[in-house]
Amino acid sequence: MSAKDRYHRIVRRAIESDGWEITHDPYPLQAGGYDLEIDLGAEKIIAAEREGQKIAVEIKSFLGPSKISEFYGALGQFITYRAALKIQDSDRTLYLAVPNTLYEKFFINLFIQDLIKQNQVDLITYDIEQEKIDRWQP
Amino acid sequence: MSAKDRYHRIVRRAIESDGWEITHDPYPLQAGGYDLEIDLGAEKIIAAEREGQKIAVEIKSFLGPSKISEFYGALGQFITYRAALKIQDSDRTLYLAVPNTLYEKFFINLFIQDLIKQNQVDLITYDIEQEKIDRWQP
Repeated sequence: MSAKDRYHRIVRRAIESDGWEITHDPYPLQAGGYDLEIDLGAEKIIAAEREGQKIAVEIKSFLGPSKISEFYGALGQFITYRAALKIQDSDRTLYLAVPNTLYEKFFINLFIQDLIKQNQVDLITYDIEQEKIDRWQP
Repeated sequence: MSAKDRYHRIVRRAIESDGWEITHDPYPLQAGGYDLEIDLGAEKIIAAEREGQKIAVEIKSFLGPSKISEFYGALGQFITYRAALKIQDSDRTLYLAVPNTLYEKFFINLFIQDLIKQNQVDLITYDIEQEKIDRWQP
């Protein structure tokens, strides 16, 4: 199994453990004549808070050698998908899922945190070993 | 010469022809502990309008197979560089330089134009054959 597929399965299971039903794998998105895909679509089924909330999750592994280059791509993709989602399915919130180890090494940087806030990027961090969601930000 | 180097030289000459002096090649940028580089720094020397204006130009060739994937990276890089430039050299305006042929094929798409406007991406388009700047947007 490719690393990409492995991370996909880990995040899928982690989101399910968190009380969400996976409704799309992948979630299809049309915009500007392009057929795009967000990795997962999910809906909250357990617990009163967030009940019925719909999300789409783009999964990033950040396994390449340049974290900052991968960040450029992830940020641009997030902004593009969010704009497309706003037109197609405005009740659905987009999240970028990144490994918690990468979050602690890279996203914790103040300059990167400022970029995340300025561009209102919603993040999920996941624990690869435990297959659990660690953090929803904000 | 690599295609990347060839496009770099074309844009450098095109900007010089437009009355700018190249002051940095590349323009060094520090942010969040990262040493980044924008392809060119330039200052307007000819003509009353824009005189003394300072710009930084990130050159994109969009030669890869997936234009939308390259767009994600270019958009994320532009937003990151702009945030860093605002801290380091707030009088300098960042431009993304793209081939005019690519602009007519890809950037003209209404969804992409909306993203460019929403994210206030300043664009230069360049003519590869003529080695001239075609368009400043906005």
